Amino acid sequence: MATPDIIFYTNKASIYAERVEFAFQEAKADVTRYSIDFANKPEWYAPRVNPASKVPALVYGSPKSDPENPSPESARITESLVLLEFVADLYPDSGLLPKDPVERARVRFFIDAVSTKVSPATAAFFFRGESPDAFIATVAEIQELLPPTAQFAVGDHFTIADAAIAPFLARWELQLRNDVGKFAEGTGPGVHKELFQSERFARLQKYLANISSRESFKSSFDPGVHMVTKMFEVGLRMLW
Amino acid sequence: MATPDIIFYTNKASIYAERVEFAFQEAKADVTRYSIDFANKPEWYAPRVNPASKVPALVYGSPKSDPENPSPESARITESLVLLEFVADLYPDSGLLPKDPVERARVRFFIDAVSTKVSPATAAFFFRGESPDAFIATVAEIQELLPPTAQFAVGDHFTIADAAIAPFLARWELQLRNDVGKFAEGTGPGVHKELFQSERFARLQKYLANISSRESFKSSFDPGVHMVTKMFEVGLRMLW
Ligand SMILES: N[C@@H](CCC(=O)N[C@@H](CS)C(=O)NCC(=O)O)C(=O)O
Ligand SMILES: N[C@@H](CCC(=O)N[C@@H](CS)C(=O)NCC(=O)O)C(=O)O
Repeated sequence: MATPDIIFYTNKASIYAERVEFAFQEAKADVTRYSIDFANKPEWYAPRVNPASKVPALVYGSPKSDPENPSPESARITESLVLLEFVADLYPDSGLLPKDPVERARVRFFIDAVSTKVSPATAAFFFRGESPDAFIATVAEIQELLPPTAQFAVGDHFTIADAAIAPFLARWELQLRNDVGKFAEGTGPGVHKELFQSERFARLQKYLANISSRESFKSSFDPGVHMVTKMFEVGLRMLW
Repeated sequence: MATPDIIFYTNKASIYAERVEFAFQEAKADVTRYSIDFANKPEWYAPRVNPASKVPALVYGSPKSDPENPSPESARITESLVLLEFVADLYPDSGLLPKDPVERARVRFFIDAVSTKVSPATAAFFFRGESPDAFIATVAEIQELLPPTAQFAVGDHFTIADAAIAPFLARWELQLRNDVGKFAEGTGPGVHKELFQSERFARLQKYLANISSRESFKSSFDPGVHMVTKMFEVGLRMLW
């Protein structure tokens, strides 16, 4: 039986699409990518693919479709965390989700923390310029969830928990280093020093190193896209 | 192989614990229930079971444990949405999650909407007394997600999507009817009329009828606990 066709609507700048790209890479999935230009969104995208008009989105199922005019019979699937589970379901042998129910629950507990804590704390600090202390405190909570010695978020195998958080970690590191965010000028490098150079966050640093050495990471995260300067700050939200 | 022992820490008043109770009932799972008194929380609960000191929580795995002193070898699992997936994983033949990846994605998309839209809109209206219009608009969005004719949130089989939203629907109906919430006195019955008696929300009403006729619902939702009056309004948050 042929694998049904997968069309992945994405954009290199999107943090949420990157989660899914990461999972596809890890699963060595064969997908057709179609990049959606945010500044110039094709008029067929919302009606034919995703009514919310965002990426990531998938069109899944035969018959093989033209990405600009996908078959109405194919399924439309959206929301990055839903898509991570979907990729894990499609590729059960990828290890993206462990087989053991308790281990699976650990993966999902981690993802729950990313969605209820990491996303809002990132938005508050990077997009609204709120206190770095609250942001750092959240990162410390997340570090607490990392197993003391295992390589990844839940054990020694890469899972969708890693795919859910990695794009955040990578952007934090890059943007703080380059002082890019809505916070007061000069704040970024100070927070960078705390999170990415201090002993206190050694566990987090090791985790980022483990993640970023993977081929899947290298081919899903594109620092060039994020090499934004102060000039682009107003458009920063769009760039994520 | 004996099924590992499951201890379920719960409270009849908890909306989140009720989701899990609902799923256990549907799966006909054999669990040991232990009720946590919020007003008088046992001092062993946080250190031995759930550091966040909330319900629902599970202790899972042999050896058979005393709920007040569970074996350190057993796994601790928390967060209602993580637990719903866990119950579905433990009972794959319950139908709580369909087998087809696309159908599973539909269930998870629905749950994502419950967690990102329904929970915050409920808190804003019932606990902070904000505008009924925003609340009603969110309920209308959710109604849009219900399939036009199928019985449940995703098709004709009860899934964890139903378990995730049902406790909200049931509390809305009961509390609006009894005018219980932080909103201005008399607001509840007006919103009740709109949501539970008008033609506009006929689909939602039919859905609630389908859900509430189930045995699993009758044995997990206890209206008596929610028969709170204005007197208890200040403590309302705790009662959920
Ligand atoms: N909750 C969604 C968020 C998706 C989202 O916000 N995508 C952004 C890029 S990161 C987007 O498509 N923005 C384009 C637009 O809104 O026009 C998910 O997790 O997939
Ligand atoms: N996000 C958690 C929320 C759990 C929660 O807030 N539980 C409440 C009852 S609904 C609780 O245990 N409250 C008691 C307390 O905070 O002392 C979940 O979905 O399980």
